[in-house]
Amino acid sequence: MSQNVLVVHGGGPTAVINASLYGVIEEAKRNPEVGKVYGAIGGTGAIFSETFLDLTSFEDDKLKLLLHTPASAIGSSRYPLYEKDYEKMAEIFRKYDIKYVLLNGGNGTMDACGHIYEVCRNLDIRVVGIPKTIDNDIAMTDHCPGYGSAARYIAASAQEVGEDIKSLPIHVCIMEAMGRNAGWITAASALARRKQGDAPHLIYLPERNFNETEFLEDVSRLYEKQGGVLVVVSEGLHNANGESIVPPIFKTERAVYYGDVSSHLANLVVKELGIKARSEKPGLCGRASVALQSPVDREEARMAGIQALRSAVEGKSGVMIGFERIPGDIYQIQPKLVPIKEVMLYERKMPDTYINERGNDVTEEFINWCKPLIGGDLPEFLNFRDYI
Amino acid sequence: MSQNVLVVHGGGPTAVINASLYGVIEEAKRNPEVGKVYGAIGGTGAIFSETFLDLTSFEDDKLKLLLHTPASAIGSSRYPLYEKDYEKMAEIFRKYDIKYVLLNGGNGTMDACGHIYEVCRNLDIRVVGIPKTIDNDIAMTDHCPGYGSAARYIAASAQEVGEDIKSLPIHVCIMEAMGRNAGWITAASALARRKQGDAPHLIYLPERNFNETEFLEDVSRLYEKQGGVLVVVSEGLHNANGESIVPPIFKTERAVYYGDVSSHLANLVVKELGIKARSEKPGLCGRASVALQSPVDREEARMAGIQALRSAVEGKSGVMIGFERIPGDIYQIQPKLVPIKEVMLYERKMPDTYINERGNDVTEEFINWCKPLIGGDLPEFLNFRDYI
Repeated sequence: MSQNVLVVHGGGPTAVINASLYGVIEEAKRNPEVGKVYGAIGGTGAIFSETFLDLTSFEDDKLKLLLHTPASAIGSSRYPLYEKDYEKMAEIFRKYDIKYVLLNGGNGTMDACGHIYEVCRNLDIRVVGIPKTIDNDIAMTDHCPGYGSAARYIAASAQEVGEDIKSLPIHVCIMEAMGRNAGWITAASALARRKQGDAPHLIYLPERNFNETEFLEDVSRLYEKQGGVLVVVSEGLHNANGESIVPPIFKTERAVYYGDVSSHLANLVVKELGIKARSEKPGLCGRASVALQSPVDREEARMAGIQALRSAVEGKSGVMIGFERIPGDIYQIQPKLVPIKEVMLYERKMPDTYINERGNDVTEEFINWCKPLIGGDLPEFLNFRDYI
Repeated sequence: MSQNVLVVHGGGPTAVINASLYGVIEEAKRNPEVGKVYGAIGGTGAIFSETFLDLTSFEDDKLKLLLHTPASAIGSSRYPLYEKDYEKMAEIFRKYDIKYVLLNGGNGTMDACGHIYEVCRNLDIRVVGIPKTIDNDIAMTDHCPGYGSAARYIAASAQEVGEDIKSLPIHVCIMEAMGRNAGWITAASALARRKQGDAPHLIYLPERNFNETEFLEDVSRLYEKQGGVLVVVSEGLHNANGESIVPPIFKTERAVYYGDVSSHLANLVVKELGIKARSEKPGLCGRASVALQSPVDREEARMAGIQALRSAVEGKSGVMIGFERIPGDIYQIQPKLVPIKEVMLYERKMPDTYINERGNDVTEEFINWCKPLIGGDLPEFLNFRDYI
């Protein structure tokens, strides 16, 4: 009897989630115990509609494109799951001779992974989680595949826009980074700097309550000194009551809609300080950029896919692949297995030691932790202003 | 007596303006008739403060970084110029033995170029314009250095975000492109498509009056059919009265401030159609991206710098370097000299034949015109949804 694999993607994609998928397929192809790798085309909903595609049937030349394809090549979903769904899933797995179920996603997906593990544990169907999130908010791992590329994107963008502002220093520019509750991506913009005074000049994270007065003081002081100012802010900035700093624009029966933090703050600078300001919100561009993939992130994502299938074949179940950093001067990680119930629904935020006292920048400790993840130095630029 | 060159940058930078600067310096180094190349550090204002740096004193290994450095390596400005300024400039040029004045910029800079030419014409000081704008709105040239890279950026971003939306088709996404009065950049997003149905699904240009009812009809129809929809819009969309489609947020004594077109339209989709929507506004990222420079654009920008100095040395003055496309199946251009007064302050918009009848897309004719400028095909992606 063939022992097939099912891969399911959940939640928002990253620049390297397909590299993990590639890792699963390459491991399956080299392991004679493993049959087909099915992709659930469209996330968890595809399990119930049995929309499975045999990915092992594709040539490797074609499959290699996965390493440089952003978004999810098998589709994803935010389909909510209930207890009866899990029972139904187990039946479908048996119908397709699926012995290995690999779920690749963030906190919500790891929660589903735990539930699926529960219904499959007596059926000899093994369930392993592959972490994926640009937000880096999954617990029990040094960092998460997808984050390094989002970090490289924001660092490179801050470096480039910083160069633009330095060359035409007429405004304050507010750049918005993804990550609503955790500031990991916003913080990574600090990697744009090569020397004292380089952009970004201010960084505001959702781990701190936003103080409008201090923000305006900081911006005003820097603008007086140098002209152009680049501020990087998290999309999730909130006040001391935990409310968004942007007033709600309108409400529907289901949700409240807020404007963008970046344009809100740019408007505030114009209104309160009378300084020209503008906002940039690369948004989804920041999780879908192939040109700014981190090569380290890509290889780690691929390795997580390989390890997930290998662990399942070795009999592991109810676990997620995590990364452990090996202490030392040279960056090295090793995979580890984390019990899925220790991961489920816990949101990991930036520790205090990564944020400066005033809450408008990161610390050297954060920079040292983050630097290897973006996969190599950013390009060197030539600016003649540095020579006068 | 040495015959020096002065290079001045004006207005907003592009991803390849420094490639033109490199072209000037390399041409100067190989021409024994030419002395130093001074860079005016900080735009036209630097002429009056005599903030000049001798760029020929740098090693070529260092200077080559200019080809891959975004923004302006010598700085730029939006300093307004008056008649008495031009007279003063001529004195300073003589003080520094400057025989060749090269101004690199957009429409405003070409206007200044014309005025400087007037005061220098009897002094044997030659004045040549190098066109530069991401907006592609300079007249009398097939296209303009800086545009090809901005076009590649928006096309690649639309392709990547399109892939993201296709993989998790839960929302309408409105991406905002730069170019307030001319839709060239917005239009270039169409180059993201490889096959029927690919993103972007709708494109709205400032050459047409924006019709809200038709926009909502278009979005609604596509969302019904396919789920995720990517719309690319110009930052300068306006109604039939020429007013911005975004209501003013607040006014100061000097200016009226509007919100972003992209977030305005995303909010409209949520409110009027009850469909989840979000906005992306890469903004300055789109003119500063090194990773998405068009190699064709870079080489043409460099060539424009070389030609500008060469023409000045040959005795030309009061002209701008333009590009003429050589008819034929293979893309080729040749430089031409355009009298500066034919260029000054004329804003070039997209012709009617480049826009479809409903005003929600571009035509095949535009795509054929634009395609060679982005410098090679965008990457191929693998999406398994195409196989079911």
